[in-house]
Amino acid sequence: MKSSLGAKTIVPIAPVWVVGTYDREGKPNVMTAAWGGVCCSSPPCIYVSLRKATLTYGNLVERKAYTVSIPSELYVKEADYLGIASGKITDKFSATGLTPVKSDLVDAPYVKEFPLVFECKVIEIIEIGLHTEFIGEIMDVKADSSVIDEKNLLDVEKVKPILWSPPNGTYHRVGENIGQSFSIGKEIKIQSNQPTMDDS
Amino acid sequence: MKSSLGAKTIVPIAPVWVVGTYDREGKPNVMTAAWGGVCCSSPPCIYVSLRKATLTYGNLVERKAYTVSIPSELYVKEADYLGIASGKITDKFSATGLTPVKSDLVDAPYVKEFPLVFECKVIEIIEIGLHTEFIGEIMDVKADSSVIDEKNLLDVEKVKPILWSPPNGTYHRVGENIGQSFSIGKEIKIQSNQPTMDDS
Repeated sequence: MKSSLGAKTIVPIAPVWVVGTYDREGKPNVMTAAWGGVCCSSPPCIYVSLRKATLTYGNLVERKAYTVSIPSELYVKEADYLGIASGKITDKFSATGLTPVKSDLVDAPYVKEFPLVFECKVIEIIEIGLHTEFIGEIMDVKADSSVIDEKNLLDVEKVKPILWSPPNGTYHRVGENIGQSFSIGKEIKIQSNQPTMDDS
Repeated sequence: MKSSLGAKTIVPIAPVWVVGTYDREGKPNVMTAAWGGVCCSSPPCIYVSLRKATLTYGNLVERKAYTVSIPSELYVKEADYLGIASGKITDKFSATGLTPVKSDLVDAPYVKEFPLVFECKVIEIIEIGLHTEFIGEIMDVKADSSVIDEKNLLDVEKVKPILWSPPNGTYHRVGENIGQSFSIGKEIKIQSNQPTMDDS
């Protein structure tokens, strides 16, 4: 028997994404957002949802481009700060000592010290309510050599991304590997002797 | 110096969400989706992005309602299976032994054995490309007593949700707590002696 907790956005885990934009004068800003994720595989798209009150919202409406820089757990303090402080009254790059780098593909800056970066052009803006969703087509993904293996593939265990738990209000590491996807579930297929295909 | 990995949806971590729907005849189906997240705080909304080829896509267009059941790590095998097998040719509830429960708020079933459930009405459908995004307003969140504390608050460490890493193709536990949000970043504010406010 399940009990009601009310209509709340208490998903167990959300990403810690640092959204980089330029303002009208070309000044770089970064904010941490947790309402983000992948929304399409082809074209490859991610989104971030933002309140109108943020500087980033205005920058995005104006510039139609953003980056998402993924902080490693070494930068959990900076990531939290970038979600508390306002770019309207603070230069968050100088406050944190982080370095803005101009993307060569989109009109937005990313964070040099963070190991993984998505460069996006806004292709759709959806007004939902308190938050507006900005769908960005990924133009490229860039990574430090420290987080890719010899085959040029990204390794999440090297990225060491930060997770945020909305119900607990805590940051977490990614925990241990508990199985390979599109693989461990096949044991059930065999047991049940039912045909399967990749369009569930 | 960062190197290019190409325009790919290789975010470090995505959620493992099990989407419950009814088909035209009222038969329950569940599929695992990783392209999902929160997209608005008020009204409280989450989304799932699905390919048109899935049974769930058709069910959602028809019924305009879905649930998201969050499997605990005990069910990693079932969660993987629910993303491999097709509801078009398999009864995934009987194959896994999981139990469908009719939501009393929306026209969709959830998974009894999974500890946390979101009940959603579709309020917007956005065609992006290969995937279509279904924005659902959360009508209620329901949880097993095993994952809530004495104050009726959800504890993510009790839920034990599964994370999926798109670049690695691996499932992961949520790792250890590395800090409190809206708190640990304040050390930087103090050091830099700059005013901040909650509209970054």
